[in-house]
Amino acid sequence: MARQDRAIKTRRVILESAAAVFDEHGFDRATIAEILSRAGVTKGALYFHFPSKEDLALAVLHEQVLDIAVRPQPIKLQEFVDAGQILAYRLRHDPIQRGAARLAIEPGANQLDRKQSMSAWTTFVEGLLNEARARGEVLESVNVRDTAELFVGAFAGIQMMSKAFTDQNDVSHRLLVFFEHTLPTIAVPAILAKLRLDPERGARLDAELRERAAEEAERAAALEADLQNAAP
Amino acid sequence: MARQDRAIKTRRVILESAAAVFDEHGFDRATIAEILSRAGVTKGALYFHFPSKEDLALAVLHEQVLDIAVRPQPIKLQEFVDAGQILAYRLRHDPIQRGAARLAIEPGANQLDRKQSMSAWTTFVEGLLNEARARGEVLESVNVRDTAELFVGAFAGIQMMSKAFTDQNDVSHRLLVFFEHTLPTIAVPAILAKLRLDPERGARLDAELRERAAEEAERAAALEADLQNAAP
Repeated sequence: MARQDRAIKTRRVILESAAAVFDEHGFDRATIAEILSRAGVTKGALYFHFPSKEDLALAVLHEQVLDIAVRPQPIKLQEFVDAGQILAYRLRHDPIQRGAARLAIEPGANQLDRKQSMSAWTTFVEGLLNEARARGEVLESVNVRDTAELFVGAFAGIQMMSKAFTDQNDVSHRLLVFFEHTLPTIAVPAILAKLRLDPERGARLDAELRERAAEEAERAAALEADLQNAAP
Repeated sequence: MARQDRAIKTRRVILESAAAVFDEHGFDRATIAEILSRAGVTKGALYFHFPSKEDLALAVLHEQVLDIAVRPQPIKLQEFVDAGQILAYRLRHDPIQRGAARLAIEPGANQLDRKQSMSAWTTFVEGLLNEARARGEVLESVNVRDTAELFVGAFAGIQMMSKAFTDQNDVSHRLLVFFEHTLPTIAVPAILAKLRLDPERGARLDAELRERAAEEAERAAALEADLQNAAP
């Protein structure tokens, strides 16, 4: 493995360990010692990538935002639903998402920009809804910005409530209830009838996105190897 | 003023001061010293009412739950809307509600029962929706429990987002967007057409509830005075 690949992997391991500790204890009570012991790396390696606990938290929040993605669908509003169900799935299975979810709602650490994740999601959903509107999928009565902010705010609370009562086990169901209650006032009827809301899509879509990311990483590595072989 | 009245007032002043400090700094960073200085009471008075910071936080959360109320309306679903808009109004103006809102979402203090407030609200809304259903105001498709939990979860996130971006200044508008998006899938059309959603209702309804509570307190005081005069 090239030195760069190793550094990327180490960084990811540290981030996932930090996210898990933030998820469990919150920012204030998380300790570098526990993150080190989970990640199984040296203090030097950790501080090389992240000079402070704040940097770790910001990187977890940032990584979560980078992970916002969805596969293109014939109906644009389906991507809106899919993005939500993928996130709901990841809140149960992905340490980065779990840690970021707690950091984003925890008002304790004032130096963190908790709004980052809510802003990024609002922009993403607003973009999807605007595209959906351009295709005639969205009802005239919808104010796209308001609806995007409703989704982001409501989702933040829905996942928080699910976390408190079932450790996120029912977050997909709660999100389904949200979609069932709101999509009839968002989508035109012909589109509404075609939307697939089953929460089980979240797991499959997440797996597809991961597969695709792995393929891309492989292609990039092959390309780099070719370039190195071709170098004089 | 009778000794008991004074104790009740002191307790309320301490609670409101504590709530304000929790709202500003969160549970972990709130100090008894700052609460004392805001309340203008002695350490002895505070510890007489609340032996610890945990007791103060629990009392703030409990007080918030006691404050759940709404005036009866000819349409039961109107009470559902009103309860939301009163809470939204109080999140801007009532220190107890503001402090409780932060304590309820802050996962820092593990000894607090943060679920208390969400459970109490869910039960309250579920009751309203069941009464509304019995009167034929609610669509057949509604699962009352799911819808009540959606309201509570979504509201928690909506107010959190409003807090982060505008210090609750737009929480009533955000709640209006929630109602506009969900009531068409909750209320039967004839009821939907009659519901009053204007966020300005929140201020008026809160004032009415306060007036009524003051009248009741006066009546109770008068009754007590009569009883004391009549005593041998």
